[in-house]
Amino acid sequence: MWIQRPLELAPRPRGFHLVTREVLGGIPELGQLQVGLLHLLIQHTSASLALNENASPEVRRDLESWFSAAVPEQARLWTHTLEGPDDMPAHVKAALIGSSLTLPVSDGRLALGIWQGVYLCEHRDHGGARSLLATAWGQAHGERGGS
Amino acid sequence: MWIQRPLELAPRPRGFHLVTREVLGGIPELGQLQVGLLHLLIQHTSASLALNENASPEVRRDLESWFSAAVPEQARLWTHTLEGPDDMPAHVKAALIGSSLTLPVSDGRLALGIWQGVYLCEHRDHGGARSLLATAWGQAHGERGGS
Amino acid sequence: MWIQRPLELAPRPRGFHLVTREVLGGIPELGQLQVGLLHLLIQHTSASLALNENASPEVRRDLESWFSAAVPEQARLWTHTLEGPDDMPAHVKAALIGSSLTLPVSDGRLALGIWQGVYLCEHRDHGGARSLLATAWGQAHGERGGS
Repeated sequence: MWIQRPLELAPRPRGFHLVTREVLGGIPELGQLQVGLLHLLIQHTSASLALNENASPEVRRDLESWFSAAVPEQARLWTHTLEGPDDMPAHVKAALIGSSLTLPVSDGRLALGIWQGVYLCEHRDHGGARSLLATAWGQAHGERGGS
Repeated sequence: MWIQRPLELAPRPRGFHLVTREVLGGIPELGQLQVGLLHLLIQHTSASLALNENASPEVRRDLESWFSAAVPEQARLWTHTLEGPDDMPAHVKAALIGSSLTLPVSDGRLALGIWQGVYLCEHRDHGGARSLLATAWGQAHGERGGS
Repeated sequence: MWIQRPLELAPRPRGFHLVTREVLGGIPELGQLQVGLLHLLIQHTSASLALNENASPEVRRDLESWFSAAVPEQARLWTHTLEGPDDMPAHVKAALIGSSLTLPVSDGRLALGIWQGVYLCEHRDHGGARSLLATAWGQAHGERGGS
């Protein structure tokens, strides 16, 4: 069983945002998978996807603080400045955090740790809506396996 | 063919630890896969999984040194300090390194480079046992493919 | 449908290199997949794979500048120096960026964002040719799904 579907995440300000519910709402067919995986690709190079703590807003704020201190806008090393001061740091943050997640599905649900949630890491000041491509595959309930 | 199984890694001190053998011991069914993949998710947000050098203990020590210097406990930017000084740096390190690995399986074995091994990256001082969820899928020996 | 094949990337100097075309040239069978995924593992611990901006050479140069400034060769913290001053920083960069990519395939093509390309991130001064293992799986055109 394969499902592939584009999802669009609503625009968000620069920072780390919990989007687990928004993502799951876009792929209700996950409920049909007894065992499988969900792959999410963010189709941009100035935002990224991560798993991290799903409870404290402080954690998300501190993540933004650390990443923006580690990859500053005013660094002398940037030569790619045409698209604004937040653009090149965004590419570096995307390289650090990554553009995709692969998540296990068990009994029709994402099998994350109880403190884990899906983050949209928005690295631009005005990144706008973000396009994801979701791909899910696995064994449906009642489907016979290959072995 | 699908296999999904929780694994528990024994408690380890803060640092980078080679756990390839411990992980493989928990999923002997990999031997049945002619071609496939193994996905590992660590179900925590203060530890991570990586592939890196499997030979020198110095490499693992130097990785710990670099990450703990780059994400210091005493940074002024932390506001999430309730769970101890090693907690917020652990979340940042988890965002940098990542929570899951997807590894190819070939002829019943992990098809890693000869110098590659699976690391548990323990970012807490006392993280305790760590829960993984292992998911393997692919074509079993003698199984007919879909094409 | 499963395809697994070793690929060898030509030697490149230290830095970030766009290799989308070279990788795709090595797995023409992707064209047969209606929906699926492509997994790429670099079988080394001193180079890495990333998705990032496919247009501007400045972006790739600035990525190299930032990573080499963040993980310097002369850091006092290195004890693993036997393989040269560029070796231990290479292991750290590989831990930061990661060793594998999982990419969606749709209608026989990689379903990346229009600005995304596959990067070989070469962290050694003289890394030589780099071995990848490519694994693709999914539903072929005309193949009946499991549900």
